[in-house]
Amino acid sequence: MLKVGVIGTGMIGQDHIRRMTTVLAGVRVTAVSDVDTAVAASVGARTGARVHSLGVDLINDPEVDAVVVCSWGPTHEQYVLAAIDAGKPVFCEKPLATTQEACLRIIDAEVVVGRRLVQVGYMRRYDGEYRALKAALGRGVIGSPLMMHCTHRNASVPAFYEKEMAITDTAVHEIDMVRWLFDDEVAAVRVLVPRRSRNGGELQDPLMLLLEMSSGVLVDVEISVNIRYGYDIRGEVVGENGTAALGNASPVTVRHAGTDSRPVPADWRERFLRAYDVEFQEWIDSLSAGGQPVGPSAWDGYAAAVVSDAGVAALRTGDRVPVVLADRPKLYAAEVAA
Amino acid sequence: MLKVGVIGTGMIGQDHIRRMTTVLAGVRVTAVSDVDTAVAASVGARTGARVHSLGVDLINDPEVDAVVVCSWGPTHEQYVLAAIDAGKPVFCEKPLATTQEACLRIIDAEVVVGRRLVQVGYMRRYDGEYRALKAALGRGVIGSPLMMHCTHRNASVPAFYEKEMAITDTAVHEIDMVRWLFDDEVAAVRVLVPRRSRNGGELQDPLMLLLEMSSGVLVDVEISVNIRYGYDIRGEVVGENGTAALGNASPVTVRHAGTDSRPVPADWRERFLRAYDVEFQEWIDSLSAGGQPVGPSAWDGYAAAVVSDAGVAALRTGDRVPVVLADRPKLYAAEVAA
Amino acid sequence: MLKVGVIGTGMIGQDHIRRMTTVLAGVRVTAVSDVDTAVAASVGARTGARVHSLGVDLINDPEVDAVVVCSWGPTHEQYVLAAIDAGKPVFCEKPLATTQEACLRIIDAEVVVGRRLVQVGYMRRYDGEYRALKAALGRGVIGSPLMMHCTHRNASVPAFYEKEMAITDTAVHEIDMVRWLFDDEVAAVRVLVPRRSRNGGELQDPLMLLLEMSSGVLVDVEISVNIRYGYDIRGEVVGENGTAALGNASPVTVRHAGTDSRPVPADWRERFLRAYDVEFQEWIDSLSAGGQPVGPSAWDGYAAAVVSDAGVAALRTGDRVPVVLADRPKLYAAEVAA
Amino acid sequence: MLKVGVIGTGMIGQDHIRRMTTVLAGVRVTAVSDVDTAVAASVGARTGARVHSLGVDLINDPEVDAVVVCSWGPTHEQYVLAAIDAGKPVFCEKPLATTQEACLRIIDAEVVVGRRLVQVGYMRRYDGEYRALKAALGRGVIGSPLMMHCTHRNASVPAFYEKEMAITDTAVHEIDMVRWLFDDEVAAVRVLVPRRSRNGGELQDPLMLLLEMSSGVLVDVEISVNIRYGYDIRGEVVGENGTAALGNASPVTVRHAGTDSRPVPADWRERFLRAYDVEFQEWIDSLSAGGQPVGPSAWDGYAAAVVSDAGVAALRTGDRVPVVLADRPKLYAAEVAA
Repeated sequence: MLKVGVIGTGMIGQDHIRRMTTVLAGVRVTAVSDVDTAVAASVGARTGARVHSLGVDLINDPEVDAVVVCSWGPTHEQYVLAAIDAGKPVFCEKPLATTQEACLRIIDAEVVVGRRLVQVGYMRRYDGEYRALKAALGRGVIGSPLMMHCTHRNASVPAFYEKEMAITDTAVHEIDMVRWLFDDEVAAVRVLVPRRSRNGGELQDPLMLLLEMSSGVLVDVEISVNIRYGYDIRGEVVGENGTAALGNASPVTVRHAGTDSRPVPADWRERFLRAYDVEFQEWIDSLSAGGQPVGPSAWDGYAAAVVSDAGVAALRTGDRVPVVLADRPKLYAAEVAA
Repeated sequence: MLKVGVIGTGMIGQDHIRRMTTVLAGVRVTAVSDVDTAVAASVGARTGARVHSLGVDLINDPEVDAVVVCSWGPTHEQYVLAAIDAGKPVFCEKPLATTQEACLRIIDAEVVVGRRLVQVGYMRRYDGEYRALKAALGRGVIGSPLMMHCTHRNASVPAFYEKEMAITDTAVHEIDMVRWLFDDEVAAVRVLVPRRSRNGGELQDPLMLLLEMSSGVLVDVEISVNIRYGYDIRGEVVGENGTAALGNASPVTVRHAGTDSRPVPADWRERFLRAYDVEFQEWIDSLSAGGQPVGPSAWDGYAAAVVSDAGVAALRTGDRVPVVLADRPKLYAAEVAA
Repeated sequence: MLKVGVIGTGMIGQDHIRRMTTVLAGVRVTAVSDVDTAVAASVGARTGARVHSLGVDLINDPEVDAVVVCSWGPTHEQYVLAAIDAGKPVFCEKPLATTQEACLRIIDAEVVVGRRLVQVGYMRRYDGEYRALKAALGRGVIGSPLMMHCTHRNASVPAFYEKEMAITDTAVHEIDMVRWLFDDEVAAVRVLVPRRSRNGGELQDPLMLLLEMSSGVLVDVEISVNIRYGYDIRGEVVGENGTAALGNASPVTVRHAGTDSRPVPADWRERFLRAYDVEFQEWIDSLSAGGQPVGPSAWDGYAAAVVSDAGVAALRTGDRVPVVLADRPKLYAAEVAA
Repeated sequence: MLKVGVIGTGMIGQDHIRRMTTVLAGVRVTAVSDVDTAVAASVGARTGARVHSLGVDLINDPEVDAVVVCSWGPTHEQYVLAAIDAGKPVFCEKPLATTQEACLRIIDAEVVVGRRLVQVGYMRRYDGEYRALKAALGRGVIGSPLMMHCTHRNASVPAFYEKEMAITDTAVHEIDMVRWLFDDEVAAVRVLVPRRSRNGGELQDPLMLLLEMSSGVLVDVEISVNIRYGYDIRGEVVGENGTAALGNASPVTVRHAGTDSRPVPADWRERFLRAYDVEFQEWIDSLSAGGQPVGPSAWDGYAAAVVSDAGVAALRTGDRVPVVLADRPKLYAAEVAA
């Protein structure tokens, strides 16, 4: 029974606590902490977890085997570093840290320890459709991949959403996903600007993000964040001899009033509910045997940050922006493929 | 943490033990028992569960809060009755018992206790597609249901499979499902015999089972058990103003060699893997709060047995066979809808 | 340039005149006739065709190479016999005649002539989807056919529609289609009566028609004639090793307001528009070379009448009604396959 | 009965002669001509059409009401100009002419005449799926269009195919289609170069063509010309509130050997067979009433040439290349929308 402490008991943190408490096997939430101590106290009272005022105290609590970081992004670095310092596995919601430099500091710390402790919360790698897509590529029937077409559509975004977030918050999932899917790094980024939807007011929406992989595979990503009709994630890989695409499964089809129709998910919670469950169960299982995490690594978190920064630069300048990564430490040798 | 004892550690039993040990929350397998004591001992050694020679001893073990019965069908009645006698909740894999009379004896025992203890393992009620179908009916857009078309296709069946099993083992899932979906009892049964597939040797395969619900809804079920291409479960409800059908979700689509194709599940394990997980998690959750099970009841197990018997008679005689049920005890008043 | 005379200038007749005048190649409408002489005169004036008061005069007009009969059903026999008598090819809209006996008289007359002159208007054989389905069966990948599931749904029917018409006017298309698809005769018929839709008032709607082919293939046909959402024709053949189904093609898919939807045809005109064009073009082409028609024959018209009568008897009695056909004359030896 | 002369009796020319002779209504091929006089003579003998040694003689033949030009591209200009000079309608297969300047000379000649005589053979405007897509946009449910995703995939191309042809011969269909679909001109072009397929040897395949419409709508076109699995044309318009896509209809679906699959067309003949029929029938109908052609105009042919040239420049330089069109004569005021 893995004992987990959760730093950050906001919406995402509470959802992960619910997941570890009522859905998954082999785990117990033993401690919580939040900058809003009242919320932390309430969650602790409800779940029986100890409440710490400081995340660092939670990390050092002997009743905590592993740490989950769901706090505000700018605080991620310190908690991840503290967990590494304590020699405890840490699952950090995306982003790993808010700057490339911070990500590199985490990598450095982990390399010093010499074994993987950090996992970053890119849940698409755990989605059944993406896994079936990767498996289809692996069977080789479509030949080597050459292109990929992606769409990332949100019904709406909140008022505080700014145009760079289309890259840093929204398409960052595709950035991690293609690195994993193709087992390859992104080499350059472009952003094109289509006609603007009036649904987003002054926001530039949609955008088209173009990612060139090191292999030459060209990925286009439509990012539409106010398209109203639903949350729609699609992807099709174009190979030399065929294509493979996400199934866009739907549980029911209704014929009514002149149409044959299938529901589209309302939001990411509905679409990726199971992926979060699988992500956490596999993380728990990897640790329970005393092992290292095998999911997205600190290197993956760093690479996502670098590509994301290049995307923001591309959006601002209109140019093709090369992606320049630091040397990859041996610790992460095979990580993209994990 | 619900403490569960499992009677029967064959393939299904071991799968449920795996599920309760490594997939689900809030449960622990504390005891096992099997007629093959060596197998039971091995499972006990692997999981840390106590091993009982006799199922009855397991039921009465104070470290067992609830019982799961996965033993050979003819033994179900005695274990379920013993659990009721011990006042312990019992999850019994289908069938509840091998005769209508035995099912009624279980009902009688449970009615004497005055609260629900028994749940029967009809897992389709927990499948996401069937639930979406029931929800679609509930929204009313297609109007009152009038007909339902079902297919139940297996790639192959083992050599010992006999023609009555198409009703008693295979279509019994549809029998329970339509009772739940329409919140209604089956009133009469017919079986039609199409041209025989050579894949099944002398076996009469396929069959068409026709179920008349009390409301008049007519359900046709194609039962094909050697169709080779895969395991394919489909259902479409025809309403007054439209239809609603299972989505037949597939995780990936591949375009290759002149076709656009989607994989079909290989077998029931693949198709209903998640339904089993949800079935057990909800059973555990219903008991953990000290409550009664809310899934398929002893009444549902009895009704399935009666309809199944009528189906076998219809298969033998070629006639339309009415279904005659005993009076439903108040304890099960709303059970079909559960 | 085939010169065609059209008897009956009602809705269907005018549509075929439009087709032969503005859509198809190698044909000219040279004469028309209708019991309503004013309508015939108006059509004649518009198209330049001669107008005959009597159908028989039209048939004997030397400017008429071939005859199309679109008049009221009870008049079909006399016109078809007169055309045979005149040695002219005749395309007769369904039904060939209103009784089995009348169909046999037509067969007798044609057999005396010793070559095929009659074609009956069963247009499904010319639909691209049904032809693709037959071709798929012919490739043999699904093995021998064992069952077929059909749906025939109309959005609504007129007030004069009576319950027998579900067999004689609606499902008669499926009756002809399965004979053609499987190259086999229907051996027996059953009709089952589901719960009644309130959309049809007192009309018994829907019905389920069951056809047993001589080979043992079992065909079920859902007939729903007031289902409102559209006109929906589907069919799936169950073989030993797989299934093949109509594609239910839709030209566009729209994602909007929470759904991914495709339009369903509004009525049979929309669904089978092209099939009628192909039917007539192939009829014209077969005659232009001085040959015999190769489409549905007088035998097919007769067989449809016998099966349809059996269906009506089955509907009235609730029984399984065997289909008893006369001996098939050699002239029609291979006609089902045509 | 429109009397048509066909210049060029190669593969395409013979196919159009077949179409006008055996498929369509209201047309007769009265004259043919080809640089290969033996082929022309053979076609003439088979169809009864007169044979001319020179295209110009065919154009001036009084038995020719309208001209179809299917000869080698570099000869198009002279024949189209000669037809305009003779005051006869002319249907010219794409391209209208091989240079922008030649297209402008045709426009100038037609403007002098003061009425439309020229139609260019862009057949996608006549395809049922593209028309349904345009109709869906017209209904307004998805809001204003913002982006469009297209794929244009060929199973293979001949050995003489060069990389510029991906723009000038292949994607030129999309260039015309988006101008028609959005009733708008292309404002700028980019070409991106993905990883190269080994199926095409040294050929750069695939390519991604990006078209910016004057309205700002951004169109991406995947051009894959050796993808082996089939001919696959897809398109999805992204609007403010939803999307609309080609249906990719398939006539049959087969379940066999672990998959549920639909056939993909083998080539453009199969995919666009009906579109060619409709294109010609509508051209014939527009002329038969003594009217002007309403299909793709000389302006459309010119605009396609300019955009195509910009595409070739973009492919060579890697730059974004603006599209600069001459002023549009009033004669073509509403032509894009036609």
